[in-house]
Amino acid sequence: MAEQFSFSIEADDGGARAGLLETPHGPVRTPCFMPVGTQATVKTMTPRELEELGAQVILANAYHLYFRPGAEAVARHGGLHRFMSWERPILTDSGGFQVFSLGDTARISGDGVRFKSLYDGSEHLFTPELAIEVQEQLGADIIMCFDECAPAGADRDYLRRAVRRTAEWAARCRRAHSRRDQLLMGIVQGGIDHGLRRESVARTLELDFGGYAIGGLSVGEERGAMLETMAYTASLLPRDRPRYFMGLGDPAGILDAIAAGIDMFDCVLPTRDARNGGALTSAGRINMRNAAHAEDDGPLEPGCGCYACSNFSRAYIRHLVTQKEILGLHLLSLHNLAYLLDLAEQAREAVVEGRFREFRKQAPAAY
Amino acid sequence: MAEQFSFSIEADDGGARAGLLETPHGPVRTPCFMPVGTQATVKTMTPRELEELGAQVILANAYHLYFRPGAEAVARHGGLHRFMSWERPILTDSGGFQVFSLGDTARISGDGVRFKSLYDGSEHLFTPELAIEVQEQLGADIIMCFDECAPAGADRDYLRRAVRRTAEWAARCRRAHSRRDQLLMGIVQGGIDHGLRRESVARTLELDFGGYAIGGLSVGEERGAMLETMAYTASLLPRDRPRYFMGLGDPAGILDAIAAGIDMFDCVLPTRDARNGGALTSAGRINMRNAAHAEDDGPLEPGCGCYACSNFSRAYIRHLVTQKEILGLHLLSLHNLAYLLDLAEQAREAVVEGRFREFRKQAPAAY
Repeated sequence: MAEQFSFSIEADDGGARAGLLETPHGPVRTPCFMPVGTQATVKTMTPRELEELGAQVILANAYHLYFRPGAEAVARHGGLHRFMSWERPILTDSGGFQVFSLGDTARISGDGVRFKSLYDGSEHLFTPELAIEVQEQLGADIIMCFDECAPAGADRDYLRRAVRRTAEWAARCRRAHSRRDQLLMGIVQGGIDHGLRRESVARTLELDFGGYAIGGLSVGEERGAMLETMAYTASLLPRDRPRYFMGLGDPAGILDAIAAGIDMFDCVLPTRDARNGGALTSAGRINMRNAAHAEDDGPLEPGCGCYACSNFSRAYIRHLVTQKEILGLHLLSLHNLAYLLDLAEQAREAVVEGRFREFRKQAPAAY
Repeated sequence: MAEQFSFSIEADDGGARAGLLETPHGPVRTPCFMPVGTQATVKTMTPRELEELGAQVILANAYHLYFRPGAEAVARHGGLHRFMSWERPILTDSGGFQVFSLGDTARISGDGVRFKSLYDGSEHLFTPELAIEVQEQLGADIIMCFDECAPAGADRDYLRRAVRRTAEWAARCRRAHSRRDQLLMGIVQGGIDHGLRRESVARTLELDFGGYAIGGLSVGEERGAMLETMAYTASLLPRDRPRYFMGLGDPAGILDAIAAGIDMFDCVLPTRDARNGGALTSAGRINMRNAAHAEDDGPLEPGCGCYACSNFSRAYIRHLVTQKEILGLHLLSLHNLAYLLDLAEQAREAVVEGRFREFRKQAPAAY
């Protein structure tokens, strides 16, 4: 693990764990939910509000920032922390997922992937070395290897090739990475095939990364298989390194991930769903466009201490949402993030106090 | 003036004045700029941010709230203050301006105006009595008479009829109004015709309102004539009542209004222009979409203490604006409001210290 980082397990409870990851921009207490700020902004949120919600680490995306405003531009502005005024840890995704999933134009070419930009259709070549260079320019605390994320339903040959290419690329990322103040994480692929997951874990562990991510799930496969593969893969990872499950953020899934020994997870769900009028509550997702809320003087979630729930009724938020007022999207985003951040924080306390199993049982119904 | 209100002049400086209006929801130190929250939200802003900016009183609109979510619904939710979680004073416009300006379907009919709703095209009749009833249900501290706002360029006959109808309606508003915790303001009309303005002032003063507004300017007439008419009309109003100039909010205009003895003004400009990428600065309006800002590490306005200027560069805000990120609109709205609120506050200090003339001379160029 890089010099300025350390990871320790404070408590175990069944498979679940409460950890502490130290980074150059401060500590991350795990398990933790990481809000997604794709374009160097967690949609609708000010950094101040994110801090108040207790967000410890946020994501940004190398693919998007490479194109707009450009990684060199971000570097000239002092790096991502300064650019977006976020003093706590940041994690950047490498762009692998975006290259393969956006626009459907990716093809393996020479030593990388050739694809057309989502922004202007221009052709680009991404390589593992470029993905690392971009992430070094952005300057996040935690950065990711450039991987090949196979789509759900890919056949075994496809998956095997993706696993092997991901391992080769991981080795090249490892060699290319030079910043001592960044933790580079390897990514395990292999779809829902246990054999390929085992192979991918073995090849990735050989390279000795500071942390390990489980990628290539949450891409459309059947949920039971996803959760089962997540748990299986997590069980193969070393105890003393942080484990990051990529792209999970529904309340039930978060509890499943924590039970499986995952430390970090992220998802656009809380902010994306907010833009569709959705609110996360202990009674499940509710649609704030629904006329049923027009006369409801209560908060989105009774007992929630977030700014939205402390100050505004469902009736008012429904008014804002139906009138397409930005404050409505903002309050829903804020609450949804608070809900998931609080859930992870409460789960951590339960792990520390050795009552995670009961906590999970009593937790609200699935989202 | 209603029992729970008082207005006093703390200082005069030429025609400019520093006043104090006491309301049931706290004091308003004048001159003051009032942010506009048409649909019970100042676009993109949280009430907490508005308080931090020093906003003392905000506007909402009876026309819009009558249709969505309905004035009775707002009343059931405890009134506008509670509904939108704003504890400081609120002023509601009567809807007169909207009825006559939105959709071009208004026609005088019987004892009111018949028009089609902007929301669903349904036909409605607004009367002075209904405008007061709606505003009593909403529960703002300061409410406005229902007036006929003639368009710029209306001929003298049209203007004369509008002045007389506005006076008749003002009398009916006065009779209909019953809440002791609301200050009802009369509105002076008359276009840019001095004779009609004088007539309108005389007819409105007869009714002895708690404050007087100058309406029917800022509707498209030539700027010099507008300012000249504003100053002329203000000079006819009683010293001991607050004076509100409706719909003015550019920096130069604000200083002109204060010089003319206006105490309150409002405009959608700071938030509307933000949504077009515009930022108010001492060097004039700048367009944040402009590539010139892409490498600019400085704040929108050097020396500005607002959250946007304290934390973010022009380069970052340009990135947000060009990527259509909501945070960009939000930060521009916040800064533009801060700019106008600060300008009015600084003008007030200058009046108190007897140096308003110099302050106005040194003020930045016109917007």
